[in-house]
Amino acid sequence: MQLSEHDSTDTYLIAPSPGASKLTRAVEGVDHEGRVQHLNVVEERPLTIFLNAQEIVTAMTIGDYPEYLALGFLRNQGMLRDGETVLCVDYDDELDTVVVRTDGQTTYEDKLKKKTRTSGCAVGTVFGDMMEGLEGVRLPDAAVRTSDLYTLAHRINTTPSLYLEAGAIHGTVLCEGARPLVYMEDVGRHNAVDKIAGWMLSEDVGPEGKLLYTTGRLTSEMVIKTALMGIPVLASRSGFTAWGVEIARQVGLTLIGRMRGRRFVCLSGEDRLIRDADPALVADEDRQNKRKGGQ
Amino acid sequence: MQLSEHDSTDTYLIAPSPGASKLTRAVEGVDHEGRVQHLNVVEERPLTIFLNAQEIVTAMTIGDYPEYLALGFLRNQGMLRDGETVLCVDYDDELDTVVVRTDGQTTYEDKLKKKTRTSGCAVGTVFGDMMEGLEGVRLPDAAVRTSDLYTLAHRINTTPSLYLEAGAIHGTVLCEGARPLVYMEDVGRHNAVDKIAGWMLSEDVGPEGKLLYTTGRLTSEMVIKTALMGIPVLASRSGFTAWGVEIARQVGLTLIGRMRGRRFVCLSGEDRLIRDADPALVADEDRQNKRKGGQ
Repeated sequence: MQLSEHDSTDTYLIAPSPGASKLTRAVEGVDHEGRVQHLNVVEERPLTIFLNAQEIVTAMTIGDYPEYLALGFLRNQGMLRDGETVLCVDYDDELDTVVVRTDGQTTYEDKLKKKTRTSGCAVGTVFGDMMEGLEGVRLPDAAVRTSDLYTLAHRINTTPSLYLEAGAIHGTVLCEGARPLVYMEDVGRHNAVDKIAGWMLSEDVGPEGKLLYTTGRLTSEMVIKTALMGIPVLASRSGFTAWGVEIARQVGLTLIGRMRGRRFVCLSGEDRLIRDADPALVADEDRQNKRKGGQ
Repeated sequence: MQLSEHDSTDTYLIAPSPGASKLTRAVEGVDHEGRVQHLNVVEERPLTIFLNAQEIVTAMTIGDYPEYLALGFLRNQGMLRDGETVLCVDYDDELDTVVVRTDGQTTYEDKLKKKTRTSGCAVGTVFGDMMEGLEGVRLPDAAVRTSDLYTLAHRINTTPSLYLEAGAIHGTVLCEGARPLVYMEDVGRHNAVDKIAGWMLSEDVGPEGKLLYTTGRLTSEMVIKTALMGIPVLASRSGFTAWGVEIARQVGLTLIGRMRGRRFVCLSGEDRLIRDADPALVADEDRQNKRKGGQ
C-alpha cells in the first residue's frame, strides 16, 4: 500500500476502539472508603496461533485484530519468511484460534527448542535465532524532525484509547512524519507490536520512513524486534536498559526514551535528528494526559 | 525460618542495592536541548538456568540473586516439586549459568511442549499445567489491616531502590503485617517474583500471613503465580485485567489494585480487610515518590 499524499495527515488508519464492547468488562470493587465501585476493566483472553497444522503458541490478548496478531507474531519470530505466500488466515472466535496457512515448509520446530526468557515478562521466550538475524539488518536512512516528535507525542497522548478508558494496557503506534498511522493496544506490549507487524505484512507497508512509538520500556527484546521489522526509529515515554541501548547502537537504530512533554533523551542514532523545534515552546504534558504510572 | 518477634519491624531482610556496581551502567545520551547526559541505566543480562543436566531457559535479568531466581523459576514452573531435595545450586558468573541439582526425576520435558504466551511480555510462555495446579489451591486465612497497607506502601515507595535510581525496572516485595521483608527488583517483573519464591524456598519461609506487593499490573499470570505460591494477598499500585480479577475470586485471593496514597480498590477477597485506618488521615503520595509513569 502506498500512502497517498492526499491522505489526511492527522487521521489514523487504525485507531483504538475504547468503546468496543468485547475489549472491556464491568468489574465491581470496593474502594479505600468502603464504597462499591463499578470499574471498566480490560479483558485478557487466550488466542491459540497455528501455523499450518502445527500449534505454535497461546497468547493472552485483549482479543482485537487476531489475524494481525497471528501474522505479526509468526513474522516477528522468523516463522514466516520473505517470499513465503500466506494462503489464508482463519480466525475462529468460538475456539479462540487463528490458523495461518502458507505454501512454505516451516522450520519452527527447531526454533521451539531453544528459548530465551525475556524482560518485562512472565515466562517469556525469544526463539533461538532472534539475535542471529541482527547481523544482516541494515536500517533505512531516516530523518527525524523534533517538531514531528512533539506533534506525535501530543496526538498519541490525546487519542481516546483503552488505556485512558481502563488502564492496565500497553500501546504501540506506527508513525510516519508527524502522523500516527496505526495505534494498537494490548495487555502484552509485544502483542501490540506484533499486531502492527501483521498489519504491515497484510497491507504491504514497508518500514521506510516509519517510526515506532511504544508506551513500554526499551528493553533488548523491543529494540531487537523493531530492528528486525526494519524500522529505523523507536521512541518511548518510558525508560531503557543498558543492553537495549547497546543493541540499538550496534544496528544503527535511533532510540529515543523518556519522551514527556518537551523532554526526551536520544540514546542512539542521534545523527538522524533534525532539531527544528524549540523545546521552550513545547507545552509540558497536561496532567490528565499523563500515563497513570502503571507498569 | 521463623521470623522472631524481636526482629525489628521496619528492617528489611533483603533490600534493593541501588549502589551495586554491576546492576547499572553509565550510558551517554543527548537530551531535548542537545545537551549530553550521563545516565545511570539498569543492566539486562542473560542467565541460563539448568535443572540437573537439562538446559531449561535463558532469562534476561539485572543479574542479582541468580540462585534465588533459578530456584524460584523452577519452583514456580512446577519443575521442583514438594519433597524434592535440592542438593546444590551452582552459579557461574563467567558463563552466566545456574545449575540446580536435585535428587528427583524431572517431568519438565512434557511441560516444555505446551506453551502459553502471557500478558505483559514479549514471547512469554506459561508451561502447560500452570492453570491445572489451581484447583487444589487453598489459600490460608489472613487479616489485612488497612493501616498496614498504608504503612507498607509508604515504606516501599520511600525505600532507596534501583527504580528510584535508574528507572525501567519492576519491584516486588514480600511483606508481613506492616513490615516489608524482601524487596526484589528486576527488568522482568516475574523475575522479581521468582527471586522471592527462591528466597522463600531457600529459607523455608511459608506463605502464611504474607502479602505480596508488586509495582506491576495484576494480570492473570501474576494472580496465578501468587496463588500457586500460596500467598493469600496480592497488592499493586497498578491496574488489573478482568481475567486477573476473575481468577483471584475463584481461588479466594485478596486482590488490591491502584494503591496510591490513600486510594486503593479491592477487587476480590474484601472480607479479609480490617478497615482500621481513616483514609482521610493518610497523606497523598509525595510527588517525588510517584512512579515515573514507566511501563
